[in-house]
Amino acid sequence: MSLSMYQSSAPVFLRALHNLQHVLRKGEAHAEARKYDAALLLQARLTPDMLPLTRQVQIATDMAKNGCARLAGVEPLKFEDNESTFAELHARIDRAVEYIKHFKADQIDGSETRTVTIKTRSGEQQFEGQGYLLHYVIPNLFFHCTTAYAILREAGAELGKADFLGKP
Amino acid sequence: MSLSMYQSSAPVFLRALHNLQHVLRKGEAHAEARKYDAALLLQARLTPDMLPLTRQVQIATDMAKNGCARLAGVEPLKFEDNESTFAELHARIDRAVEYIKHFKADQIDGSETRTVTIKTRSGEQQFEGQGYLLHYVIPNLFFHCTTAYAILREAGAELGKADFLGKP
Repeated sequence: MSLSMYQSSAPVFLRALHNLQHVLRKGEAHAEARKYDAALLLQARLTPDMLPLTRQVQIATDMAKNGCARLAGVEPLKFEDNESTFAELHARIDRAVEYIKHFKADQIDGSETRTVTIKTRSGEQQFEGQGYLLHYVIPNLFFHCTTAYAILREAGAELGKADFLGKP
Repeated sequence: MSLSMYQSSAPVFLRALHNLQHVLRKGEAHAEARKYDAALLLQARLTPDMLPLTRQVQIATDMAKNGCARLAGVEPLKFEDNESTFAELHARIDRAVEYIKHFKADQIDGSETRTVTIKTRSGEQQFEGQGYLLHYVIPNLFFHCTTAYAILREAGAELGKADFLGKP
């Protein structure tokens, strides 16, 4: 079977989000073991001018859910960005997972040259589907998952790269 | 044109390495502006039990060059891991780029089900080519590129996500 746009997107995103949930659970368990409010971690940042953990998780889920939707040529479901607890972040990820799973392979397959337009801070950006997936969504998704991991690792959570990569 | 194993590997790796060089140059420029020896940054870590910048760059290049080689079914070129300056890290990346570019698309295309065996600290791990690329090499590559970025960002380098993602 040859590689397809579906196989290179939805299953990659689902696995990244699954591993992100695992990493978040280890972060929360660390706070509990140290007897402090895990919600304090949600505002933790690598540096004052980087985004806090909550935003890293929000953007990672957005990349994944919006990625599938745009490749499928549909308007992405919008999330509220109002999470303030670990439980709410997990619910957000669960909701993104459910949304990603509702896309059928044939909605995303063949999207290599589909025009994708996104709004960024500096204006509109246009891609072909393949470039959007490989050079925008995937690097962005792993950027934010890695940053979430690094924030929790700096906070002392017992994490290793295997937690980030998950089981093969 | 439909997505292929080559398009999902070599160009993605080359772009990640190109952006990594750009991020490293900004880190080095920051040290120069602050008038300290940039080599001090090479040993910087996010936490004491994470790998320093030099190792992040070494592993990122390994993921990229070994990824292409293993998908093509050839034994990867081995690098010495003896870099101790920014110039040497750039030379390592240049060498990886040259190596990746020497693979022809038809050596990597069709590797979806090719058996890939890697040695890890916990023993041998086997993959099919597609899983190796999507669920091991790509997440690992971006993990180490993001960590390198985060180390330099924490050190005060003037970096934003656009530096990590590069130009479309």
